[in-house]
Amino acid sequence: MHFTSEQRHDDGVLEREFTLGEIPGILWTPAVTSAPAPLILIGHPPLGLRRMYPRLAARARHYAAEYGFAAATVELPGSGERPLLPGVEQARASLRRALAAGEAVGDEIVDALVLPLVEQAVPEWQAALDACLSLPEVGGPVGFEGGVISIGIRLAVVEPRIAAANLFAGSFVPAAMFEEARRVTVPLQVLLQWDDEGNDRQTALNLFDALGSTEKTLHANMGGHTGVPHFELDAGARFFARHLK
Amino acid sequence: MHFTSEQRHDDGVLEREFTLGEIPGILWTPAVTSAPAPLILIGHPPLGLRRMYPRLAARARHYAAEYGFAAATVELPGSGERPLLPGVEQARASLRRALAAGEAVGDEIVDALVLPLVEQAVPEWQAALDACLSLPEVGGPVGFEGGVISIGIRLAVVEPRIAAANLFAGSFVPAAMFEEARRVTVPLQVLLQWDDEGNDRQTALNLFDALGSTEKTLHANMGGHTGVPHFELDAGARFFARHLK
Repeated sequence: MHFTSEQRHDDGVLEREFTLGEIPGILWTPAVTSAPAPLILIGHPPLGLRRMYPRLAARARHYAAEYGFAAATVELPGSGERPLLPGVEQARASLRRALAAGEAVGDEIVDALVLPLVEQAVPEWQAALDACLSLPEVGGPVGFEGGVISIGIRLAVVEPRIAAANLFAGSFVPAAMFEEARRVTVPLQVLLQWDDEGNDRQTALNLFDALGSTEKTLHANMGGHTGVPHFELDAGARFFARHLK
Repeated sequence: MHFTSEQRHDDGVLEREFTLGEIPGILWTPAVTSAPAPLILIGHPPLGLRRMYPRLAARARHYAAEYGFAAATVELPGSGERPLLPGVEQARASLRRALAAGEAVGDEIVDALVLPLVEQAVPEWQAALDACLSLPEVGGPVGFEGGVISIGIRLAVVEPRIAAANLFAGSFVPAAMFEEARRVTVPLQVLLQWDDEGNDRQTALNLFDALGSTEKTLHANMGGHTGVPHFELDAGARFFARHLK
């Protein structure tokens, strides 16, 4: 983990960009840490860290300034300035064609779009987790939130240090991930946009149903795909505060 | 409004029993009120105030002690020591028979069970609202929560002083109330028990869908009909804090 820049915000939060091998990332830590701060890994859709930065930074700084959490994110494989994943790019083109033509999106497109991303991203997020936890100011337990729900599901299943997850229910979820969802046991909060123009509601509800955790809460809101209400930011923080402290 | 008993709790909350004509009720007000406290009407299922008291009091005292709200509840028509509503009792017996026999509950049973209750209860809750707001220590705006969702829907439609409602999604809801739900416009939070043994999930989801408010949030949890997680108490309070202050 190599820090490449450092910025102290007026809310006291320290924001540091880093690289982990070839992977860029950002770490936010609270102004004052009497004990190692619990860590939240902030996921995001594969649109590139630069584009996602304002939303990610707003979340991370709320967590750090108001709740004393550390927060970190890394670029997804195939996104931002990282090399493209050719198979995923091809699947993305097929997805766009299907959506533009008003056709159903076939399972083979969803699998090709999501599964390679999960395979490659999850070990990278685990490596980021290792690197962050090696810092004296960051500790466990660890939460994961947002982004590609299949990555969150896989991480929750394979990474025992993930103690809670706040996921965003999409519907482009491979059938294999529905099976994997049954093996999730950590407490979950799941955001669903009820009138999401890009996701199928019933599929998202089925995915929530499939999740194996005995503590799982669905928060469904209006506002379309990108219209998650502002108050869910603090609801997410309070969920983590219940489970990471 | 005639106060019949008064009790000051160690959290500073003042609890007063009252009667409003023949209707018994309870009012909780915060220890210190520099300004009139916003009021939350706490609904409940038709099981009698005495039986519901521990849960109602816990909610009310949390609202009063932690958020400075006033809270009030009144006995439902046909419940507790109030005269039975013969038609409703008959419908309740039909409901029990249908459930015991594993039969579907017909629309005519649901209508007979719920509509007379809504017709009689809503003006009573409005009278309670009038009485509470006439006290100098209680003010508007007003929230409604819990209990029979059809009562909450009707109140939200006909009573302009209701500024927000935190409802519990049941499935014994008359078809006419689905229509009325479309006319609700106040911000809503709706609790749904995902594995509710006494309610049909899809019907409850359809009811959430039907509600006309542009701000509506569904909180679905595990734990069976009576297993609403403890953290929803504070989530409800924070919802009201956003809309009643």
